[in-house]
Amino acid sequence: MTDHTVKAYDEELQFIGGRLSEMGGIAEKMLVDAIEALSRLDADLARRTMDRDPKLDLLQREIEEMAVLTIARRQPMANDLRELVAAIHIASDLERVGDLAKNIAKRTTKISGDIRVPRTLIGLKHMADIAALQLKNVLDAYAHRNVAQADDVWRRDADVDAMEDSVFRDLLTFMMEDPRNISFCTHLLFCSKNIERIGDHATNIAETVHYLVTGDPLPVDRPKGGSSGAESASAGVE
Amino acid sequence: MTDHTVKAYDEELQFIGGRLSEMGGIAEKMLVDAIEALSRLDADLARRTMDRDPKLDLLQREIEEMAVLTIARRQPMANDLRELVAAIHIASDLERVGDLAKNIAKRTTKISGDIRVPRTLIGLKHMADIAALQLKNVLDAYAHRNVAQADDVWRRDADVDAMEDSVFRDLLTFMMEDPRNISFCTHLLFCSKNIERIGDHATNIAETVHYLVTGDPLPVDRPKGGSSGAESASAGVE
Repeated sequence: MTDHTVKAYDEELQFIGGRLSEMGGIAEKMLVDAIEALSRLDADLARRTMDRDPKLDLLQREIEEMAVLTIARRQPMANDLRELVAAIHIASDLERVGDLAKNIAKRTTKISGDIRVPRTLIGLKHMADIAALQLKNVLDAYAHRNVAQADDVWRRDADVDAMEDSVFRDLLTFMMEDPRNISFCTHLLFCSKNIERIGDHATNIAETVHYLVTGDPLPVDRPKGGSSGAESASAGVE
Repeated sequence: MTDHTVKAYDEELQFIGGRLSEMGGIAEKMLVDAIEALSRLDADLARRTMDRDPKLDLLQREIEEMAVLTIARRQPMANDLRELVAAIHIASDLERVGDLAKNIAKRTTKISGDIRVPRTLIGLKHMADIAALQLKNVLDAYAHRNVAQADDVWRRDADVDAMEDSVFRDLLTFMMEDPRNISFCTHLLFCSKNIERIGDHATNIAETVHYLVTGDPLPVDRPKGGSSGAESASAGVE
Protein backbone atom coordinates (compact mmCIF):
# COMPACT_ATOMS: atom_id res chain seq x y z
CA MET A 1 0.00 0.00 0.00
CA THR A 2 1.13 3.59 -0.61
CA ASP A 3 1.22 6.03 2.32
CA HIS A 4 -1.93 7.59 0.99
CA THR A 5 -3.70 4.24 0.87
CA VAL A 6 -2.52 3.30 4.35
CA LYS A 7 -3.85 6.59 5.70
CA ALA A 8 -7.22 6.14 3.99
CA TYR A 9 -7.40 2.57 5.27
CA ASP A 10 -6.67 3.67 8.84
CA GLU A 11 -9.39 6.29 8.57
CA GLU A 12 -11.86 3.66 7.43
CA LEU A 13 -10.99 1.42 10.37
CA GLN A 14 -11.35 4.38 12.74
CA PHE A 15 -14.71 5.26 11.22
CA ILE A 16 -15.91 1.71 11.87
CA GLY A 17 -14.41 1.54 15.38
CA GLY A 18 -15.95 4.84 16.39
CA ARG A 19 -19.40 3.89 15.18
CA LEU A 20 -19.23 0.47 16.81
CA SER A 21 -18.41 2.00 20.15
CA GLU A 22 -21.30 4.45 19.67
CA MET A 23 -23.59 1.50 18.94
CA GLY A 24 -22.41 -0.28 22.09
CA GLY A 25 -23.21 2.77 24.20
CA ILE A 26 -26.69 3.14 22.74
CA ALA A 27 -27.53 -0.57 23.04
CA GLU A 28 -26.43 -0.69 26.69
CA LYS A 29 -28.44 2.44 27.51
CA MET A 30 -31.52 1.08 25.73
CA LEU A 31 -31.45 -2.13 27.73
CA VAL A 32 -31.01 -0.36 31.08
CA ASP A 33 -33.74 2.18 30.29
CA ALA A 34 -36.15 -0.44 28.96
CA ILE A 35 -35.93 -2.38 32.21
CA GLU A 36 -36.23 0.79 34.29
CA ALA A 37 -39.31 1.79 32.28
CA LEU A 38 -40.84 -1.64 32.77
CA SER A 39 -40.15 -1.66 36.52
CA ARG A 40 -41.93 1.67 36.98
CA LEU A 41 -44.39 1.24 34.09
CA ASP A 42 -42.98 4.55 32.84
CA ALA A 43 -44.47 4.91 29.35
CA ASP A 44 -42.52 8.12 28.65
CA LEU A 45 -39.17 6.51 29.31
CA ALA A 46 -40.30 3.49 27.29
CA ARG A 47 -41.08 5.71 24.30
CA ARG A 48 -37.76 7.56 24.60
CA THR A 49 -36.06 4.13 24.59
CA MET A 50 -37.90 3.08 21.44
CA ASP A 51 -36.97 6.38 19.76
CA ARG A 52 -33.29 5.50 19.99
CA ASP A 53 -33.63 2.41 17.84
CA PRO A 54 -33.50 4.03 14.36
CA LYS A 55 -30.11 5.55 15.20
CA LEU A 56 -28.79 2.08 15.96
CA ASP A 57 -30.14 0.78 12.64
CA LEU A 58 -28.47 3.65 10.80
CA LEU A 59 -25.12 3.05 12.49
CA GLN A 60 -25.29 -0.63 11.63
CA ARG A 61 -25.89 0.13 7.96
CA GLU A 62 -23.00 2.61 7.93
CA ILE A 63 -20.62 0.12 9.53
CA GLU A 64 -21.58 -2.65 7.18
CA GLU A 65 -21.31 -0.48 4.08
CA MET A 66 -17.94 0.89 5.10
CA ALA A 67 -16.61 -2.56 6.01
CA VAL A 68 -17.73 -4.08 2.70
CA LEU A 69 -16.31 -1.17 0.70
CA THR A 70 -13.04 -1.42 2.60
CA ILE A 71 -12.82 -5.14 1.87
CA ALA A 72 -13.50 -4.47 -1.82
CA ARG A 73 -11.06 -1.54 -2.08
CA ARG A 74 -8.13 -2.64 0.05
CA GLN A 75 -8.09 -6.38 -0.49
CA PRO A 76 -7.06 -6.92 3.12
CA MET A 77 -5.06 -9.97 4.22
CA ALA A 78 -6.28 -12.57 6.73
CA ASN A 79 -5.94 -10.57 9.97
CA ASP A 80 -7.43 -7.36 8.64
CA LEU A 81 -10.19 -9.26 6.89
CA ARG A 82 -11.10 -10.91 10.19
CA GLU A 83 -11.20 -7.49 11.82
CA LEU A 84 -13.65 -6.17 9.24
CA VAL A 85 -15.88 -9.23 9.26
CA ALA A 86 -15.93 -9.09 13.07
CA ALA A 87 -17.12 -5.48 12.90
CA ILE A 88 -20.00 -6.51 10.62
CA HIS A 89 -21.02 -9.31 13.00
CA ILE A 90 -20.81 -7.20 16.15
CA ALA A 91 -22.81 -4.38 14.57
CA SER A 92 -25.48 -6.88 13.62
CA ASP A 93 -25.62 -8.28 17.18
CA LEU A 94 -25.85 -4.79 18.69
CA GLU A 95 -28.62 -3.86 16.31
CA ARG A 96 -30.54 -6.94 17.49
CA VAL A 97 -29.91 -6.03 21.14
CA GLY A 98 -31.49 -2.65 20.40
CA ASP A 99 -34.49 -4.35 18.76
CA LEU A 100 -35.00 -6.57 21.79
CA ALA A 101 -34.74 -3.65 24.21
CA LYS A 102 -37.22 -1.79 22.02
CA ASN A 103 -39.59 -4.76 22.25
CA ILE A 104 -39.46 -4.63 26.05
CA ALA A 105 -40.14 -0.89 25.95
CA LYS A 106 -43.00 -1.42 23.52
CA ARG A 107 -44.62 -3.95 25.85
CA THR A 108 -44.28 -1.46 28.70
CA THR A 109 -46.37 1.04 26.75
CA LYS A 110 -49.02 -1.64 26.18
CA ILE A 111 -49.34 -2.91 29.75
CA SER A 112 -52.32 -1.20 31.23
CA GLY A 113 -53.12 -0.95 34.90
CA ASP A 114 -50.94 -1.61 37.88
CA ILE A 115 -48.21 -4.17 38.23
CA ARG A 116 -50.20 -6.90 39.91
CA VAL A 117 -47.29 -9.01 41.08
CA PRO A 118 -44.32 -6.80 41.96
CA ARG A 119 -42.31 -9.84 43.05
CA THR A 120 -42.17 -11.16 39.47
CA LEU A 121 -40.27 -8.05 38.48
CA ILE A 122 -37.47 -8.71 40.96
CA GLY A 123 -36.30 -11.82 39.12
CA LEU A 124 -36.69 -10.13 35.77
CA LYS A 125 -34.72 -7.09 36.88
CA HIS A 126 -31.94 -9.23 38.31
CA MET A 127 -31.77 -11.14 35.04
CA ALA A 128 -31.61 -7.89 33.08
CA ASP A 129 -28.80 -6.61 35.32
CA ILE A 130 -26.75 -9.70 34.51
CA ALA A 131 -27.49 -9.36 30.79
CA ALA A 132 -26.48 -5.68 30.90
CA LEU A 133 -23.24 -6.59 32.69
CA GLN A 134 -22.55 -9.30 30.11
CA LEU A 135 -23.05 -6.75 27.35
CA LYS A 136 -20.79 -4.20 29.06
CA ASN A 137 -18.06 -6.78 29.68
CA VAL A 138 -18.09 -8.12 26.15
CA LEU A 139 -17.85 -4.61 24.70
CA ASP A 140 -14.87 -4.00 27.01
CA ALA A 141 -13.39 -7.30 25.85
CA TYR A 142 -13.78 -6.19 22.25
CA ALA A 143 -12.33 -2.72 22.88
CA HIS A 144 -9.23 -4.23 24.51
CA ARG A 145 -9.07 -7.42 22.43
CA ASN A 146 -9.20 -9.25 25.77
CA VAL A 147 -9.87 -12.88 25.00
CA ALA A 148 -10.00 -14.04 28.65
CA GLN A 149 -12.75 -11.51 29.36
CA ALA A 150 -14.64 -12.60 26.24
CA ASP A 151 -14.38 -16.26 27.28
CA ASP A 152 -15.70 -15.34 30.71
CA VAL A 153 -18.79 -13.73 29.16
CA TRP A 154 -19.23 -16.80 27.00
CA ARG A 155 -19.20 -19.13 30.02
CA ARG A 156 -21.60 -16.97 32.02
CA ASP A 157 -24.37 -17.10 29.41
CA ALA A 158 -25.58 -20.19 31.27
CA ASP A 159 -26.42 -17.92 34.25
CA VAL A 160 -28.83 -15.83 32.19
CA ASP A 161 -30.43 -18.96 30.75
CA ALA A 162 -30.86 -20.49 34.20
CA MET A 163 -32.48 -17.31 35.48
CA GLU A 164 -34.86 -17.19 32.53
CA ASP A 165 -35.96 -20.68 33.41
CA SER A 166 -36.59 -19.67 37.00
CA VAL A 167 -38.48 -16.51 36.03
CA PHE A 168 -40.55 -18.59 33.62
CA ARG A 169 -41.57 -21.02 36.37
CA ASP A 170 -42.44 -18.19 38.74
CA LEU A 171 -44.61 -16.49 36.15
CA LEU A 172 -46.42 -19.72 35.39
CA THR A 173 -47.19 -20.13 39.10
CA PHE A 174 -48.59 -16.60 39.37
CA MET A 175 -50.75 -17.21 36.33
CA MET A 176 -52.15 -20.39 37.81
CA GLU A 177 -52.86 -18.75 41.16
CA ASP A 178 -55.07 -16.03 39.74
CA PRO A 179 -56.37 -15.64 36.19
CA ARG A 180 -56.19 -11.87 36.59
CA ASN A 181 -52.40 -12.24 36.51
CA ILE A 182 -52.36 -13.98 33.15
CA SER A 183 -52.35 -11.02 30.79
CA PHE A 184 -49.66 -9.10 32.67
CA CYS A 185 -47.53 -12.20 33.19
CA THR A 186 -47.57 -13.17 29.51
CA HIS A 187 -46.04 -9.76 28.75
CA LEU A 188 -43.35 -10.49 31.33
CA LEU A 189 -42.77 -13.94 29.81
CA PHE A 190 -41.90 -12.30 26.50
CA CYS A 191 -39.76 -9.69 28.25
CA SER A 192 -37.75 -12.37 29.99
CA LYS A 193 -37.29 -14.20 26.69
CA ASN A 194 -36.09 -10.92 25.15
CA ILE A 195 -33.56 -10.46 27.95
CA GLU A 196 -32.32 -14.00 27.50
CA ARG A 197 -31.84 -13.33 23.80
CA ILE A 198 -29.88 -10.15 24.62
CA GLY A 199 -27.62 -12.44 26.67
CA ASP A 200 -27.28 -14.67 23.60
CA HIS A 201 -26.14 -11.72 21.52
CA ALA A 202 -23.54 -10.80 24.15
CA THR A 203 -22.38 -14.41 23.86
CA ASN A 204 -22.26 -14.17 20.06
CA ILE A 205 -20.03 -11.10 20.43
CA ALA A 206 -17.82 -13.03 22.86
CA GLU A 207 -17.42 -15.74 20.21
CA THR A 208 -16.55 -13.10 17.62
CA VAL A 209 -13.93 -11.53 19.90
CA HIS A 210 -12.42 -14.93 20.68
CA TYR A 211 -12.13 -15.75 16.99
CA LEU A 212 -10.86 -12.28 16.12
CA VAL A 213 -8.02 -12.47 18.64
CA THR A 214 -7.05 -16.13 18.47
CA GLY A 215 -8.09 -17.15 14.95
CA ASP A 216 -9.78 -20.22 16.46
CA PRO A 217 -13.51 -20.58 17.04
CA LEU A 218 -14.96 -21.45 20.46
CA PRO A 219 -16.64 -24.87 20.73
CA VAL A 220 -19.97 -25.11 18.92
CA ASP A 221 -21.84 -26.12 22.07
CA ARG A 222 -22.29 -23.37 24.59
CA PRO A 223 -22.45 -24.11 28.29
CA LYS A 224 -26.13 -24.62 29.04
CA GLY A 225 -28.01 -23.47 32.08
CA GLY A 226 -31.43 -24.27 33.37
CA SER A 227 -32.75 -26.12 30.37
CA SER A 228 -31.01 -29.44 30.66
CA GLY A 229 -33.81 -31.35 32.33
CA ALA A 230 -36.42 -33.02 30.16
CA GLU A 231 -39.16 -31.15 31.95
CA SER A 232 -37.53 -27.76 31.53
CA ALA A 233 -40.32 -25.25 31.32
CA SER A 234 -39.00 -22.61 29.00
CA ALA A 235 -37.53 -25.00 26.41
CA GLY A 236 -34.11 -23.41 26.55
CA VAL A 237 -32.39 -20.80 24.47
CA GLU A 238 -34.29 -19.16 21.64
CA MET B 1 -10.54 -9.49 -15.59
CA THR B 2 -8.75 -12.24 -17.51
CA ASP B 3 -10.73 -15.20 -18.84
CA HIS B 4 -9.32 -17.27 -16.02
CA THR B 5 -10.44 -14.74 -13.41
CA VAL B 6 -13.89 -14.44 -14.95
CA LYS B 7 -14.28 -18.21 -14.83
CA ALA B 8 -13.14 -18.41 -11.20
CA TYR B 9 -15.49 -15.57 -10.31
CA ASP B 10 -18.43 -17.29 -12.01
CA GLU B 11 -17.64 -20.45 -10.11
CA GLU B 12 -17.65 -18.55 -6.83
CA LEU B 13 -21.04 -17.04 -7.62
CA GLN B 14 -22.37 -20.46 -8.54
CA PHE B 15 -21.02 -21.93 -5.31
CA ILE B 16 -22.88 -19.25 -3.36
CA GLY B 17 -26.09 -19.56 -5.40
CA GLY B 18 -26.16 -23.33 -5.05
CA ARG B 19 -25.68 -23.23 -1.29
CA LEU B 20 -28.28 -20.52 -0.86
CA SER B 21 -30.86 -22.55 -2.70
CA GLU B 22 -29.94 -25.56 -0.56
CA MET B 23 -30.42 -23.42 2.55
CA GLY B 24 -33.83 -22.26 1.32
CA GLY B 25 -34.95 -25.86 0.82
CA ILE B 26 -33.81 -26.92 4.28
CA ALA B 27 -35.35 -23.90 6.03
CA GLU B 28 -38.72 -24.43 4.31
CA LYS B 29 -38.73 -28.12 5.18
CA MET B 30 -37.79 -27.41 8.81
CA LEU B 31 -40.69 -24.99 9.22
CA VAL B 32 -43.24 -27.36 7.68
CA ASP B 33 -41.97 -30.33 9.70
CA ALA B 34 -41.80 -28.36 12.95
CA ILE B 35 -45.45 -27.42 12.64
CA GLU B 36 -46.44 -30.93 11.64
CA ALA B 37 -44.55 -32.30 14.67
CA LEU B 38 -46.27 -29.79 16.96
CA SER B 39 -49.72 -30.56 15.57
CA ARG B 40 -49.30 -34.28 16.25
CA LEU B 41 -46.96 -33.89 19.26
CA ASP B 42 -44.61 -36.12 17.27
CA ALA B 43 -41.35 -36.00 19.24
CA ASP B 44 -39.47 -38.08 16.67
CA LEU B 45 -40.26 -35.74 13.82
CA ALA B 46 -39.42 -32.83 16.10
CA ARG B 47 -35.98 -34.29 16.81
CA ARG B 48 -35.33 -34.96 13.13
CA THR B 49 -36.23 -31.32 12.46
CA MET B 50 -33.77 -30.11 15.10
CA ASP B 51 -31.06 -32.36 13.65
CA ARG B 52 -31.16 -30.43 10.38
CA ASP B 53 -30.15 -27.15 11.96
CA PRO B 54 -26.34 -27.65 12.09
CA LYS B 55 -26.29 -28.18 8.31
CA LEU B 56 -27.97 -24.80 7.87
CA ASP B 57 -25.40 -23.17 10.15
CA LEU B 58 -22.58 -24.73 8.15
CA LEU B 59 -24.02 -23.58 4.83
CA GLN B 60 -24.39 -20.05 6.16
CA ARG B 61 -20.74 -19.95 7.24
CA GLU B 62 -19.62 -21.28 3.85
CA ILE B 63 -21.66 -18.70 1.98
CA GLU B 64 -20.43 -15.84 4.10
CA GLU B 65 -16.80 -16.88 3.86
CA MET B 66 -16.96 -17.33 0.11
CA ALA B 67 -18.78 -14.02 -0.39
CA VAL B 68 -16.26 -12.10 1.73
CA LEU B 69 -13.30 -13.75 0.00
CA THR B 70 -14.82 -13.00 -3.39
CA ILE B 71 -15.30 -9.36 -2.44
CA ALA B 72 -11.69 -9.18 -1.25
CA ARG B 73 -10.26 -10.99 -4.30
CA ARG B 74 -12.31 -9.64 -7.18
CA GLN B 75 -12.96 -6.07 -6.08
CA PRO B 76 -16.43 -6.23 -7.63
CA MET B 77 -18.23 -3.13 -8.89
CA ALA B 78 -21.54 -1.84 -7.51
CA ASN B 79 -23.92 -4.42 -9.02
CA ASP B 80 -21.81 -7.44 -8.24
CA LEU B 81 -21.05 -6.13 -4.79
CA ARG B 82 -24.79 -5.81 -4.13
CA GLU B 83 -25.25 -9.39 -5.29
CA LEU B 84 -22.66 -10.70 -2.83
CA VAL B 85 -23.88 -8.62 0.11
CA ALA B 86 -27.44 -9.78 -0.64
CA ALA B 87 -26.26 -13.40 -0.46
CA ILE B 88 -24.73 -12.77 2.98
CA HIS B 89 -27.97 -11.20 4.22
CA ILE B 90 -30.26 -13.88 2.84
CA ALA B 91 -28.07 -16.65 4.26
CA SER B 92 -28.27 -14.98 7.65
CA ASP B 93 -32.08 -14.72 7.47
CA LEU B 94 -32.41 -18.36 6.44
CA GLU B 95 -30.15 -19.45 9.27
CA ARG B 96 -32.45 -17.58 11.68
CA VAL B 97 -35.54 -19.20 10.13
CA GLY B 98 -33.93 -22.57 10.84
CA ASP B 99 -33.25 -21.53 14.45
CA LEU B 100 -36.86 -20.49 14.94
CA ALA B 101 -38.19 -23.72 13.42
CA LYS B 102 -35.79 -25.60 15.68
CA ASN B 103 -37.21 -23.72 18.69
CA ILE B 104 -40.73 -24.83 17.78
CA ALA B 105 -39.52 -28.42 17.41
CA LYS B 106 -37.69 -28.20 20.74
CA ARG B 107 -40.85 -27.04 22.49
CA THR B 108 -42.72 -29.95 20.94
CA THR B 109 -40.32 -32.38 22.60
CA LYS B 110 -40.91 -30.63 25.96
CA ILE B 111 -44.69 -30.54 25.90
CA SER B 112 -45.87 -33.46 27.94
CA GLY B 113 -49.32 -34.97 27.91
CA ASP B 114 -52.12 -34.42 25.47
CA ILE B 115 -52.98 -31.33 23.55
CA ARG B 116 -55.64 -29.91 25.83
CA VAL B 117 -57.11 -27.40 23.42
CA PRO B 118 -56.94 -28.70 19.83
CA ARG B 119 -58.71 -25.58 18.56
CA THR B 120 -55.73 -23.36 19.48
CA LEU B 121 -53.63 -25.34 17.03
CA ILE B 122 -55.89 -24.51 14.09
CA GLY B 123 -55.00 -20.83 14.20
CA LEU B 124 -51.34 -21.58 14.77
CA LYS B 125 -51.24 -24.00 11.87
CA HIS B 126 -52.97 -21.55 9.54
CA MET B 127 -50.46 -18.88 10.55
CA ALA B 128 -47.57 -21.27 9.90
CA ASP B 129 -49.00 -22.13 6.46
CA ILE B 130 -48.99 -18.46 5.53
CA ALA B 131 -45.46 -17.99 6.85
CA ALA B 132 -44.29 -21.05 4.88
CA LEU B 133 -45.93 -19.66 1.74
CA GLN B 134 -44.27 -16.29 2.33
CA LEU B 135 -40.92 -18.02 2.64
CA LYS B 136 -41.49 -20.08 -0.51
CA ASN B 137 -42.60 -17.03 -2.50
CA VAL B 138 -39.70 -14.87 -1.43
CA LEU B 139 -37.20 -17.60 -2.32
CA ASP B 140 -38.87 -17.81 -5.75
CA ALA B 141 -38.66 -14.03 -6.01
CA TYR B 142 -34.95 -14.21 -5.25
CA ALA B 143 -34.30 -17.05 -7.68
CA HIS B 144 -36.00 -15.13 -10.52
CA ARG B 145 -35.02 -11.63 -9.38
CA ASN B 146 -38.76 -10.90 -9.43
CA VAL B 147 -39.25 -7.60 -7.65
CA ALA B 148 -43.08 -7.59 -7.93
CA GLN B 149 -43.25 -10.95 -6.16
CA ALA B 150 -40.84 -9.72 -3.48
CA ASP B 151 -42.94 -6.60 -2.93
CA ASP B 152 -46.02 -8.77 -2.61
CA VAL B 153 -44.38 -10.80 0.17
CA TRP B 154 -43.35 -7.58 1.85
CA ARG B 155 -46.95 -6.29 1.87
CA ARG B 156 -48.40 -9.55 3.16
CA ASP B 157 -46.27 -9.61 6.29
CA ALA B 158 -49.12 -7.69 7.91
CA ASP B 159 -51.31 -10.81 7.51
CA VAL B 160 -48.95 -12.93 9.60
CA ASP B 161 -48.76 -10.20 12.25
CA ALA B 162 -52.54 -9.90 12.41
CA MET B 163 -52.89 -13.64 12.81
CA GLU B 164 -50.34 -13.72 15.59
CA ASP B 165 -52.39 -11.12 17.41
CA SER B 166 -55.52 -13.21 17.03
CA VAL B 167 -53.79 -16.43 18.14
CA PHE B 168 -52.40 -14.55 21.14
CA ARG B 169 -55.86 -13.40 22.22
CA ASP B 170 -57.30 -16.89 21.80
CA LEU B 171 -54.55 -18.43 23.88
CA LEU B 172 -55.05 -15.85 26.61
CA THR B 173 -58.74 -16.74 26.72
CA PHE B 174 -58.03 -20.45 27.05
CA MET B 175 -55.58 -19.76 29.84
CA MET B 176 -58.13 -17.70 31.73
CA GLU B 177 -60.85 -20.34 31.30
CA ASP B 178 -58.88 -23.12 32.91
CA PRO B 179 -55.53 -22.92 34.73
CA ARG B 180 -54.69 -26.41 33.47
CA ASN B 181 -54.35 -24.86 30.00
CA ILE B 182 -51.72 -22.35 31.10
CA SER B 183 -48.55 -24.38 30.74
CA PHE B 184 -49.44 -25.78 27.33
CA CYS B 185 -50.70 -22.44 26.05
CA THR B 186 -47.54 -20.56 27.06
CA HIS B 187 -45.58 -22.97 24.86
CA LEU B 188 -47.95 -22.16 22.01
CA LEU B 189 -47.55 -18.43 22.70
CA PHE B 190 -43.83 -18.75 22.07
CA CYS B 191 -44.42 -20.92 19.01
CA SER B 192 -46.71 -18.31 17.50
CA LYS B 193 -44.13 -15.62 18.20
CA ASN B 194 -41.52 -17.79 16.48
CA ILE B 195 -43.75 -18.16 13.43
CA GLU B 196 -44.31 -14.42 13.32
CA ARG B 197 -40.57 -13.88 13.39
CA ILE B 198 -40.13 -16.36 10.53
CA GLY B 199 -42.55 -14.13 8.63
CA ASP B 200 -40.33 -11.17 9.50
CA HIS B 201 -37.31 -12.92 8.05
CA ALA B 202 -39.23 -13.63 4.83
CA THR B 203 -39.96 -9.91 4.76
CA ASN B 204 -36.28 -9.07 5.33
CA ILE B 205 -35.45 -11.25 2.33
CA ALA B 206 -38.12 -9.44 0.30
CA GLU B 207 -36.43 -6.13 1.16
CA THR B 208 -33.05 -7.57 0.15
CA VAL B 209 -34.44 -8.76 -3.21
CA HIS B 210 -36.10 -5.40 -3.85
CA TYR B 211 -32.85 -3.56 -3.17
CA LEU B 212 -30.80 -6.08 -5.15
CA VAL B 213 -32.93 -5.68 -8.27
CA THR B 214 -33.83 -1.98 -8.14
CA GLY B 215 -30.94 -0.46 -6.19
CA ASP B 216 -33.53 1.38 -4.08
CA PRO B 217 -34.57 0.37 -0.56
CA LEU B 218 -38.21 -0.23 0.35
CA PRO B 219 -39.75 2.28 2.80
CA VAL B 220 -38.47 1.93 6.36
CA ASP B 221 -41.97 1.40 7.78
CA ARG B 222 -43.50 -1.93 6.98
CA PRO B 223 -47.24 -2.32 6.61
CA LYS B 224 -48.50 -3.21 10.06
CA GLY B 225 -51.20 -5.72 10.94
CA GLY B 226 -52.95 -6.43 14.17
CA SER B 227 -50.86 -4.32 16.46
CA SER B 228 -52.14 -0.87 15.66
CA GLY B 229 -54.62 -0.60 18.50
CA ALA B 230 -53.38 0.74 21.81
CA GLU B 231 -54.62 -2.33 23.60
CA SER B 232 -53.05 -4.75 21.17
CA ALA B 233 -52.33 -7.84 23.15
CA SER B 234 -49.18 -9.19 21.64
CA ALA B 235 -47.33 -5.87 21.38
CA GLY B 236 -46.62 -6.27 17.69
CA VAL B 237 -43.61 -7.48 15.77
CA GLU B 238 -40.64 -8.79 17.67
